[in-house]
Amino acid sequence: MPELTGENKILRFLQNRYPAKSARLKKGMGDDAAVIETGRAGEYWLITTDMLMEGVDFRREWTTPRLLGRKSIAVNVSDLAAMGARPRFFTVSLALPPDISQSWIRQFYEGLAETDSSQGAQLIGGDLSSSKSGIAISITALGESLKRKVLYRSGGKAGDTIYVTGSLGRSSAGLRLLQAGDTDPRSRAGREALQSHQTPLPRCEAGLWLAQCGLVHCMMDLSDGLSMDLPRMCEASGVGADVRLADLPVFAESRKWGCDPVALALHGGEDYELLFAVSKPKCRLFEKTYPARLPGITKIGEMTHAAGKICVIGPGNRRRRLPEHGFDHFHQVDGLTSGS
Amino acid sequence: MPELTGENKILRFLQNRYPAKSARLKKGMGDDAAVIETGRAGEYWLITTDMLMEGVDFRREWTTPRLLGRKSIAVNVSDLAAMGARPRFFTVSLALPPDISQSWIRQFYEGLAETDSSQGAQLIGGDLSSSKSGIAISITALGESLKRKVLYRSGGKAGDTIYVTGSLGRSSAGLRLLQAGDTDPRSRAGREALQSHQTPLPRCEAGLWLAQCGLVHCMMDLSDGLSMDLPRMCEASGVGADVRLADLPVFAESRKWGCDPVALALHGGEDYELLFAVSKPKCRLFEKTYPARLPGITKIGEMTHAAGKICVIGPGNRRRRLPEHGFDHFHQVDGLTSGS
Repeated sequence: MPELTGENKILRFLQNRYPAKSARLKKGMGDDAAVIETGRAGEYWLITTDMLMEGVDFRREWTTPRLLGRKSIAVNVSDLAAMGARPRFFTVSLALPPDISQSWIRQFYEGLAETDSSQGAQLIGGDLSSSKSGIAISITALGESLKRKVLYRSGGKAGDTIYVTGSLGRSSAGLRLLQAGDTDPRSRAGREALQSHQTPLPRCEAGLWLAQCGLVHCMMDLSDGLSMDLPRMCEASGVGADVRLADLPVFAESRKWGCDPVALALHGGEDYELLFAVSKPKCRLFEKTYPARLPGITKIGEMTHAAGKICVIGPGNRRRRLPEHGFDHFHQVDGLTSGS
Repeated sequence: MPELTGENKILRFLQNRYPAKSARLKKGMGDDAAVIETGRAGEYWLITTDMLMEGVDFRREWTTPRLLGRKSIAVNVSDLAAMGARPRFFTVSLALPPDISQSWIRQFYEGLAETDSSQGAQLIGGDLSSSKSGIAISITALGESLKRKVLYRSGGKAGDTIYVTGSLGRSSAGLRLLQAGDTDPRSRAGREALQSHQTPLPRCEAGLWLAQCGLVHCMMDLSDGLSMDLPRMCEASGVGADVRLADLPVFAESRKWGCDPVALALHGGEDYELLFAVSKPKCRLFEKTYPARLPGITKIGEMTHAAGKICVIGPGNRRRRLPEHGFDHFHQVDGLTSGS
């Protein structure tokens, strides 16, 4: 048995210990969701689970029960979006300490049902438990693929161009505001950042389009930060990557409250944007056909032959290895509560 | 919005708030599992979720990581058994405090994989989180029906005979031993009781047979105790019930360590036996065809027209209402940690 330190290593151990072995199981552990063939012609079912723990993934005083409900379902739906599936159903396990009020419970479930967070997924079951300490939330979401077109982390090839949707580091910039005690920022940028952190919107429509367009090789969502998630996609694809710092769609406004936007774009978690790769010769066609109604996309670098080597290219074309400073539940150096 | 006190009331509120509204959803909230039509001819997929919280549903010092893993998957698989489904896949969300060792994690997952607990269900995904206090475990299990023959809680009719598999109160008798500090009982009965509490075996084979035989009207598993679960089945079926105390398959050996076997059979949780009802005229045929290889079954009473009225019939044919003293996460009077 390998040494289990760090979330990645634990996950790798589990992937090896529990390989997919049923003919119906197209993908088991190791991607954003598991993929099951259910028999409906041309479709797969996708299943994903995410847990949110009070004091680790959220603080009660930094959100409302309604916003917490919205975020809890959104982070699960984002995993389905990342493989190109439509969210359909979900279950919720909820453990509550004795001081939680009835109105808290009602508002939490109202948040779960908000369409822009759940993207239409329907609550079909769950479990209620009591907790001796903080709130624990675990959601399992089921989605459905269209024409069995599912995008995995593993389809990338050396030379592919790497893209992201939206901007990076906005959610963690919002978290920094909360950590500094600013729970009600007056600036527009501050409110945007806080909103990204409290109620991330899963990129379902973009994920579906990207899976259906036939031009994308691999995809995942950014939950733990680019520096944690890009190595995961590269490992699954057996490639390395070069990321150009100057090209990152950073959330520059966070500089106003003392953040380093580039550091947050690299290491900040919970953006829930999509990270994907397109074959270089197809990039022009891809960018031309990408619908304007969907969130903006940005080229941030390319996949390389140097398997496992993730580099950033900075000013003056200087290259250096990208350290994994994103969110790891088992390596919380500075108590940053971003990432789930 | 109704007053939310007690687990049953919260569940009732959620059932009303989130009715099944998709054509593919045969059953949403309110049974042991949700039932989804997936397209594979003649089959349904069933989904269930159960959460186990340290200090509420288990104590680390009263079990081993391996046994905890076994119990965690068994209680979920039991919900699938209760509707007559074959367990196929499951996901695990696990939040761990910092003092958990690598070997603990490995043993926990080994327990999850043990066939007599998982009944062949395969681990296909999950989430790892850290916890500021105790361990939190949430499992979602998927099962498959055969020929779409699924048993709900709701098919019971007045006059039906009520049966249970196995014996009742054995798991809570085991819990009482632990509570009294006896973690390694020397008597055979004590070891049996402890085993029932630590590693309940889901009644999958019996559940499948009962769903397929065509003679059973309704079924559920006993997780929170007969006095909590029988009213749930009766409510879903719109009937009442009379239970004959003398007929309960109690675990009489628990008297040796000071328990009241009848009280534990009525109110003790976590037996994970099956509770089901058969039309009275079919009982003889049913008992004749019930396979000897499956766990023993016992008639314990019958369903009545008095909807919602659950009575026990004691010595001298005296009848009294059965109080709901089983396990409720939101009404823990005496800190009993039985039921999940």
